[in-house]
Amino acid sequence: MYVKDIQTGICEKHGEPAVEKESAATALVDGRNLLGPVVGNFCMELAVKKARDVGVGWVVAHGSNHYGIAGYYAMQALKENMIGMSFTNTSPLVVPTRGKECTLGTNPISVAAPAADGDSLVLDMATSAVAIGKVELYERRGDPIPEGWGCDARGQLTTEPGRVLGGGGLVPLGGSEATGGYKGFGLGMMVEVFCGILAGAQYSKNIRTWKETSRVADLGQCFVAINPENFAPGFSERLSDLLRIQRGLNPANPDIPVLVAGDPERMHMKMCEEMGGIPYHMNVVNYMNQCAQKVGVSTLLPCDRLISN
Amino acid sequence: MYVKDIQTGICEKHGEPAVEKESAATALVDGRNLLGPVVGNFCMELAVKKARDVGVGWVVAHGSNHYGIAGYYAMQALKENMIGMSFTNTSPLVVPTRGKECTLGTNPISVAAPAADGDSLVLDMATSAVAIGKVELYERRGDPIPEGWGCDARGQLTTEPGRVLGGGGLVPLGGSEATGGYKGFGLGMMVEVFCGILAGAQYSKNIRTWKETSRVADLGQCFVAINPENFAPGFSERLSDLLRIQRGLNPANPDIPVLVAGDPERMHMKMCEEMGGIPYHMNVVNYMNQCAQKVGVSTLLPCDRLISN
Repeated sequence: MYVKDIQTGICEKHGEPAVEKESAATALVDGRNLLGPVVGNFCMELAVKKARDVGVGWVVAHGSNHYGIAGYYAMQALKENMIGMSFTNTSPLVVPTRGKECTLGTNPISVAAPAADGDSLVLDMATSAVAIGKVELYERRGDPIPEGWGCDARGQLTTEPGRVLGGGGLVPLGGSEATGGYKGFGLGMMVEVFCGILAGAQYSKNIRTWKETSRVADLGQCFVAINPENFAPGFSERLSDLLRIQRGLNPANPDIPVLVAGDPERMHMKMCEEMGGIPYHMNVVNYMNQCAQKVGVSTLLPCDRLISN
Repeated sequence: MYVKDIQTGICEKHGEPAVEKESAATALVDGRNLLGPVVGNFCMELAVKKARDVGVGWVVAHGSNHYGIAGYYAMQALKENMIGMSFTNTSPLVVPTRGKECTLGTNPISVAAPAADGDSLVLDMATSAVAIGKVELYERRGDPIPEGWGCDARGQLTTEPGRVLGGGGLVPLGGSEATGGYKGFGLGMMVEVFCGILAGAQYSKNIRTWKETSRVADLGQCFVAINPENFAPGFSERLSDLLRIQRGLNPANPDIPVLVAGDPERMHMKMCEEMGGIPYHMNVVNYMNQCAQKVGVSTLLPCDRLISN
């Protein structure tokens, strides 16, 4: 997707994001249609700088593109012992409660907070019940999806992935109205307020559809850093204790421990470290090698071990 | 509950909250164990003042008490054409995903944002699927609750309200792990980070149980104001358009329109204005008159019209 954005020229390849308006604690940034990670890194760095000075930095950008993993930016603040947040609006894939048309993206919320000894809480969640990729996976497998993930073209919850993908849409976190779907809808709207509305970017159903490249994305994004030093002493120790309380809970199923946000990824990283590398399916390696060949970069992925299972 | 807090002397009756630490954009406040609304008004006013100066104000308080409606504080920012947010930690009533013990409160998130012509988005939501009062209501009626509201003492989702109230607990927004309950759990943790952890107040299962008055509450709360003037021009108009897009959607059921957060309360206010007053059930009026008599204040509620239905 990123390569295509560069090849079609729909993204800018050169230049730097520009600060359009600034105060000690805030900034409005023009992403100048550069790749999302370029805009995101620029804005998060600025937010951390402001939080160092006045305790909080709130930076929003318009003219941005898909920025990858929301949590990546929030986690930049951890290096400075700060709380980081990042939000982005996205292409319409979510049907509001009571509706039957997609007018919001999966609009993620990410928050990272530093605990003691390098530990942390890292929340990175779509405000829909699941990502669209998960529904696609179930369709490919031919499996039904759990009720509460998506709806059909008439706005009715469905367990058939094909109906979600063919004219329906994802539903907000919470599922049906009875189980609190309107709260997920409200959270998606909050993210849109922090992104498209605050930044003056595209918003809601005006955002180009997923993978469309006929016009610029002009996404809105929001980056926040909060310095615990400006509040009560002992932040990291209290957070460690909070994490300890949750992880130490007696689980409902003795074989499935209680985890906090960020733990599954931490466990995967530990596994990779023990393996001495990141495992990919051979099909992914082959596909990436083909991509590399097409764009004329080295196909030599450092793939030095084959594991079968 | 508030009257009891005053009568038992577990809350302070005199004094003012105090700023302990301050920057241009942040403040740490000692609520001095005053009633929650006293602390909340003090902090929100301070947050708005800071947002007027530097675009954002982030104020946290420890030593607070139950502050009533989270949205009330967020909405104070609307008068200044600002975005307001408020968060509080609360007594443990929520069971984390995979757990079977209540270690988080219903920890609400509230966000209010000003649209044009007095319109607004007002989100005020518990990070649990529902409030405990809703489960109590179903129990009194003898009705089963929808799956995804609460679990029993073994951590299993249940539709029997009695099991939720008798040793079980509420579950996070999203319900089961398969439908995204871990996201609601993560949001509840985020609120705890902004409140108990950032403010140095009580947190998680250390918070006194609901309606317990044998020790001070020492709740943590967080109040944020964001000035759209510091970002892209035209905020209110864009927000109005966003609200128009959602409200104007073709509903799945032609009789049930799509609403945005704050609309149900707005509709109720309109109804009250048309009726010329706020309707209460006669039992509530009688109960409040009894309370008034007990504490020695006038029992003369301005109840001038009886409506039967």
